Amino acid sequence: MGTAVGDDPIDPEVLDRMFAVSAATEDSPLMPNDQLDEWLVRRRQAYAFEVTRIPFAELSSWSFAPETGNLGHDSGRFFTIQGLHVRTDTQVWSQPIINQPEIGILGIAVKEFDGVLHFLMQAKMEPGCVNAVQLAPTVQATRSNYTQVHGGRRPHFLDWFTEPSGVLVDTLQSEHGSWFLRKRNRNMIAFARGDAEGYDDFRWLTLGQIMRLLNQDDIVNMDARTVLACIPFRRTTVNENPAWTVAPGDPCSPSRWISHWLTDVRSRRELVQQTVPCHALTRWRRTYDEIFHVRRRHFTVIAVRVDAASREVGSWTQPLVKPVGVGVAAMVVKELGGETKLLMQARVEAGLIDIAELAPTVQCLPVDYGHRPPPFLDYVLTAEEGRIRYDAVQSEEGGRFYHARTRYMVVEAEPAFEPTPHDGYVWVSLADATALIARGYQVNVQARTLIAALHGSVHTRRDANGFLTMTAP
Amino acid sequence: MGTAVGDDPIDPEVLDRMFAVSAATEDSPLMPNDQLDEWLVRRRQAYAFEVTRIPFAELSSWSFAPETGNLGHDSGRFFTIQGLHVRTDTQVWSQPIINQPEIGILGIAVKEFDGVLHFLMQAKMEPGCVNAVQLAPTVQATRSNYTQVHGGRRPHFLDWFTEPSGVLVDTLQSEHGSWFLRKRNRNMIAFARGDAEGYDDFRWLTLGQIMRLLNQDDIVNMDARTVLACIPFRRTTVNENPAWTVAPGDPCSPSRWISHWLTDVRSRRELVQQTVPCHALTRWRRTYDEIFHVRRRHFTVIAVRVDAASREVGSWTQPLVKPVGVGVAAMVVKELGGETKLLMQARVEAGLIDIAELAPTVQCLPVDYGHRPPPFLDYVLTAEEGRIRYDAVQSEEGGRFYHARTRYMVVEAEPAFEPTPHDGYVWVSLADATALIARGYQVNVQARTLIAALHGSVHTRRDANGFLTMTAP
Repeated sequence: MGTAVGDDPIDPEVLDRMFAVSAATEDSPLMPNDQLDEWLVRRRQAYAFEVTRIPFAELSSWSFAPETGNLGHDSGRFFTIQGLHVRTDTQVWSQPIINQPEIGILGIAVKEFDGVLHFLMQAKMEPGCVNAVQLAPTVQATRSNYTQVHGGRRPHFLDWFTEPSGVLVDTLQSEHGSWFLRKRNRNMIAFARGDAEGYDDFRWLTLGQIMRLLNQDDIVNMDARTVLACIPFRRTTVNENPAWTVAPGDPCSPSRWISHWLTDVRSRRELVQQTVPCHALTRWRRTYDEIFHVRRRHFTVIAVRVDAASREVGSWTQPLVKPVGVGVAAMVVKELGGETKLLMQARVEAGLIDIAELAPTVQCLPVDYGHRPPPFLDYVLTAEEGRIRYDAVQSEEGGRFYHARTRYMVVEAEPAFEPTPHDGYVWVSLADATALIARGYQVNVQARTLIAALHGSVHTRRDANGFLTMTAP
Repeated sequence: MGTAVGDDPIDPEVLDRMFAVSAATEDSPLMPNDQLDEWLVRRRQAYAFEVTRIPFAELSSWSFAPETGNLGHDSGRFFTIQGLHVRTDTQVWSQPIINQPEIGILGIAVKEFDGVLHFLMQAKMEPGCVNAVQLAPTVQATRSNYTQVHGGRRPHFLDWFTEPSGVLVDTLQSEHGSWFLRKRNRNMIAFARGDAEGYDDFRWLTLGQIMRLLNQDDIVNMDARTVLACIPFRRTTVNENPAWTVAPGDPCSPSRWISHWLTDVRSRRELVQQTVPCHALTRWRRTYDEIFHVRRRHFTVIAVRVDAASREVGSWTQPLVKPVGVGVAAMVVKELGGETKLLMQARVEAGLIDIAELAPTVQCLPVDYGHRPPPFLDYVLTAEEGRIRYDAVQSEEGGRFYHARTRYMVVEAEPAFEPTPHDGYVWVSLADATALIARGYQVNVQARTLIAALHGSVHTRRDANGFLTMTAP
């Protein structure tokens, strides 16, 4: 581990200023915006590929264990689709779930160019992503990648994270609790230890450039979004006028109250997870090419063959999880006492590591609900345009999910919006939400995408005098 | 949830001062020390009981499931002894483990009397504890107790924690990772909502009084020790002389470096836990009255009948886990730049919720090791008396373990002690350790007992002028 890390050399205020300046810088000579789209198009051409559904029997090196019906790779690596029996305080069910116990690294390298922090983003092809190639972190590495226990190609720039020279963010975060059993990844931001010239798939972008792309559909991948959500924004301004300071809360230390609230939910609710054979899932059916819920709800497990145009990538087969519809994840927000407050719910999900995490106000597959929509779904879907601060469809992880898309929305509450949350809902300041993310396993992956989007909408901008100032969201 | 909690009314500095004054107050008119021992003796007489080992067949309402060999209660409540297959990056083994998925409350109520915070402690009888009756938190409640789903007696003062009027500490903490599967309890300190007059088993004590008892063997039970370890001491002094301030670190916000270090260990190490039937444990044997390791290592599962003298308590039977020897948990410490630094190891344990937690320098059952002692065991056992800051034998949880005793030691490093830790060991400041405890699942239960003891040894004392001052440890 780099000794510079031990020195903790950067003052948090200085660090905050570095992130704020980068967020306020919406274009960069290193990769001007007007060339960025073109670069992505070229990357898409380079990685053009075709995904074809195949019968499970045509999977190469993947098979169902005869005694359990679990679907796994012959090497025991990657992941397994197994059964999970779930008992909460209110419900009992069983479902297939992805079991991938190892912790991967999602790391973004940063470096200052001309006084502005730039983020090294990768154009990465994933078979399940819409658009095929999206903007990903510098490194997405599995544990096998970085421990090299199974040999194989070592991802570019991996050393910058395994032997870092300066770590700005390093936390473990959960992933989709309804689809993964206790899955977590390591989210890192670290200083680059060199340059990235000559790597066609990598480009240095400012945070402002990335945030611009986050306002579009299906460009910034899930792995990048969760890392960006971990930036410990203090939301102080970068000019010298303290009047601009907006709710400066300590990004590392959530209020005692919100910790108490979530702990209380975790001890009142209940989540008992028991792995079972896929064979034991009575409400799920397996045919020659899919595993599906008897009422066609939730998701389907399918098998695909991926044929890439480039020889380097080649072809492979793998299972993917395909949700039955487009999800909605929406955060209702309001301004209160100079702070942005988010209406969050404590959501119990089948595979979470610690019972419940804070989730967006609304998080669902609407198609699963039919005529009985969950609380606030209608409220956000019928919001007038002036109250919608963010609205984009994003892809979930493209290495495990096939066209798993979620409509992410941030909706401003009307003045008359009920001030007291329902049971299980709570108003959380953006500062507290940021601080909870630093702890890990407190804020779920859908909420983290929305918090990344919120950071984008509240960042500092240069005013007419060239000063960087905080714009209230 | 009490609204006063939402107001977060107590400034952290004020709170710290309240704890510091209580720690500096080593006697109290409410329960003078010279009556305290006598009260405990009387409580022991009131709860006199006999524990007799019995064959498993004589357990009432407990039985082995025929298909798995797992030992559980017929109601499905309490806990189950099941099998666990464990794979780490260095080892593979299987063992019996206690599965008790619910979260209980360990809560201490506090109240100011004459300006000094007092802690409401309970004299609690537990069948496996040495001394039978030890000092316990105000409330030790299982989830069934507080949700009342199964009816039964509601513990005294429970409402003070389920509907608190002011919460000072509220975190989830792990318990023994070698014996429990993902066990965690909610550790709370909350303001009392009333008095406790007329309750023979409850007494108000200052923190100084409790710390005095913690220096003796087998008086303060494990549940009390873990809650005391969660006190967010800032270690500022309570007189006005800032020169006394010792390493004031923010108790809620650990340094970025130590978080990074532990996250790095968690992603490099590996822990894959798979529950299996007890029948499948090839190196464990079951006889009519015990389940034991073929080489008589680790622990034995036994069954006992408890016959109490008092009618109110009556008799019952239950399984208990009995370690094969007395454990050692020792922390090597040194003073560096005005801070107390603890040499901790990142320890992977079978049942931990998140791979590894920070543990004492030495944590082992020496009898398991024979002639190949773990690092630093000899160092702490042969330390000269002048370097031993704390040395007491304490009981682990008496409701699950039978005479599970650990010798807890804090040993000062010699000046020549190797400055660079072995791989997997790290120097952690006491302030950082306290801050990590506030996050939950970062510091294991043995280390928490030692940190409670360290807080006792560094607290403020009244000087000759009546000022409260910090005494360096």
